[in-house]
Amino acid sequence: MITMRTSPHAVDFGDVRATNLAVVLRHVRANGPCSRADIAAATGLNKATVSSIVGDLIRRRLLRETGPSGHRIGRPAIMLALDGEPYAAIGIAVGSDHLTAMAVDLPGTCLLSWHRSFAEHAASPGLAVAAISTLARRAAARVTSQGRYVLGLTVGVPGLVDGDGVVRRSPTLGWRDMDLRGELVTALRQPGYAIAVDNEANLAVLAEQRYGPYPEATNLAYLTGGASIGAGVVVDGRLLRGNRGFSGGIGHIQVLPDGPACVCGRRGCLEALAGVPALIRRALPDLDVDVSLALDIQEIVRRAKAHEPATLDALAETGRWLGYGASLLANIVNPEVVILGGYFAPLTPWLLATVEAELAVRTVAPQAGGCRIAPATLGTESSALGAAARILDHIDAGHLPELPDD
Amino acid sequence: MITMRTSPHAVDFGDVRATNLAVVLRHVRANGPCSRADIAAATGLNKATVSSIVGDLIRRRLLRETGPSGHRIGRPAIMLALDGEPYAAIGIAVGSDHLTAMAVDLPGTCLLSWHRSFAEHAASPGLAVAAISTLARRAAARVTSQGRYVLGLTVGVPGLVDGDGVVRRSPTLGWRDMDLRGELVTALRQPGYAIAVDNEANLAVLAEQRYGPYPEATNLAYLTGGASIGAGVVVDGRLLRGNRGFSGGIGHIQVLPDGPACVCGRRGCLEALAGVPALIRRALPDLDVDVSLALDIQEIVRRAKAHEPATLDALAETGRWLGYGASLLANIVNPEVVILGGYFAPLTPWLLATVEAELAVRTVAPQAGGCRIAPATLGTESSALGAAARILDHIDAGHLPELPDD
Repeated sequence: MITMRTSPHAVDFGDVRATNLAVVLRHVRANGPCSRADIAAATGLNKATVSSIVGDLIRRRLLRETGPSGHRIGRPAIMLALDGEPYAAIGIAVGSDHLTAMAVDLPGTCLLSWHRSFAEHAASPGLAVAAISTLARRAAARVTSQGRYVLGLTVGVPGLVDGDGVVRRSPTLGWRDMDLRGELVTALRQPGYAIAVDNEANLAVLAEQRYGPYPEATNLAYLTGGASIGAGVVVDGRLLRGNRGFSGGIGHIQVLPDGPACVCGRRGCLEALAGVPALIRRALPDLDVDVSLALDIQEIVRRAKAHEPATLDALAETGRWLGYGASLLANIVNPEVVILGGYFAPLTPWLLATVEAELAVRTVAPQAGGCRIAPATLGTESSALGAAARILDHIDAGHLPELPDD
Repeated sequence: MITMRTSPHAVDFGDVRATNLAVVLRHVRANGPCSRADIAAATGLNKATVSSIVGDLIRRRLLRETGPSGHRIGRPAIMLALDGEPYAAIGIAVGSDHLTAMAVDLPGTCLLSWHRSFAEHAASPGLAVAAISTLARRAAARVTSQGRYVLGLTVGVPGLVDGDGVVRRSPTLGWRDMDLRGELVTALRQPGYAIAVDNEANLAVLAEQRYGPYPEATNLAYLTGGASIGAGVVVDGRLLRGNRGFSGGIGHIQVLPDGPACVCGRRGCLEALAGVPALIRRALPDLDVDVSLALDIQEIVRRAKAHEPATLDALAETGRWLGYGASLLANIVNPEVVILGGYFAPLTPWLLATVEAELAVRTVAPQAGGCRIAPATLGTESSALGAAARILDHIDAGHLPELPDD
């Protein structure tokens, strides 16, 4: 007799109400306007449960009644539609030299998009927390002044973030075991909204999944292209987090024994060979002062457009290493698309052919396992947008916001 | 205005009945015996839906009534418990030199466990199909003669298997674009049960998840250790399949540029360095005739127990490369445990320290991201057992068997 798990796929029965809330909310989003009876018929939930859930959702202004249907026989039914405009989700992305803040409402309207210099702040955790919390406070004040209720704040960072929002390792920022979430809760004096910290690649792939041109894709990966390289991976429609939230740490996999030194202290890491700083060193050896990644990339694009051979060679080498990185994802997680994010996106015209060729050679499955390479479509704002989207995903999963005090 | 997906997490409303069936079945498994009213109260499904679902499940002999409860005030309720004993799921694992067949019932009783030599069959797809279908027919006849209904047959192979059951690539077996599922359906003359073909590592990790000592783990990975190396990965409780089912192809990731030639035609693949055949070549250079992997591994264990330095060195080198392979999984998917399967399992006492050390050095997250290394517990039968478990998982997901003709 083999001992059998009682529940090989965890079903949280305590969470049945949240599941049902999510089912109703998503049904109305996909099929609204629709009536309570329509929802009950389509979902198999009983009418009393649907009425109770709809009441909850209306009270929280996630649904609204749009008036009676004119297309029915007999007593007209009250129709329901998605609301959610009274809510705002705030995302902040921490880059090596800048902060980006965005806010969106539940239906997806962008409420604000701000950029701030951060170069001088990252070195000191205290200054970093002050800069991030100041930006968060201003963003919250702005959307509150528009009559919106702040659902939450998510901060995206390049590095390994655990489930408590502690940045365990960020070679890019030089942070180690920094309790960013705890520091922000203190600095923001426990505001009425939830605060979370997450890996920037995870957030960027959530943004591409929710707002990007991949309506059918349920398996996608995103490679960040800022000061560092990390991967965000969506598997079967859901973010791959792993056991402790440390998935996607592709940048520090060794791809060349005894290769160049990496910021992490190892040698030959993918990031040290395929990363944007490595590209800048190869493509712009004549520029010995780091101006900013953004300006350096503009210069590389200018030279590439002018067909300068040294620049094209440098881009081809970066493309080959990026193809190696993409093949690691293709072999292990078999995504439908690997999205080149950050500064890789504007360079895609010159990277694509070498990335694709290297990917095909290094992937054991035929045709790279069906994996294609595509530039990110949401620009450098993808992590900030994904940070906001993460909060909306939480509502989609049936975790309703606290009622605003009104 | 950002365009919003109507359903970022796919909810298949057409599948609501299957979901509800699964919820009821798993509730009874976890909490039975229980009444229909208990189920309705716990799941939020209405009583008419629960009655209809329970009726279906009883008719299909997945649940049974155990008589009235004695612990209630008022009219005693009829209690329900898991049945499923009338059903058998058959799994067959194809190794490079043997076939393993297993059958289990829904509660987990092992009904049969057979091994057959396969060495002379693999080279010819026609002989292979004949050998596999003969074994399947005999297993089906055995469990049918015990009064059980065959739910399905899953065949596990080392290699990339697409969603249609076509073995796209199997360097180990020398197969390429072989429609194994189609061939088996023909050879078995369209039996009344479902036939599926899947990757052996996927099946092994399903077996460890369902029957192994990881009751709480929802993120686990399994490294096969037969003639080839592949990974099966469970993420968030679910098998990671990827876009086309080609996930876990870790064996042919290059870990040493210009390394030894691999059966796939590349050089320096993980399999060429960490694989069991490579270990045998290193540890038993004096044996120049391939007897069988199993006998060779017995000899390595004997020499390791005798502390022969050359054998211990060979095991240490294999351990280092396996640690490299485990670190690829740790960095990208962050599992809680990497299970050393197949012939690696009996060698774990000598491999463990070097695997762990290499894993720790090569994983960017602290403490290898919480990843530990453990030997497989289900022996060389894990893939065959997982092949059967895959069929039971399908029922757990609410896809009920066709009614037996009785």
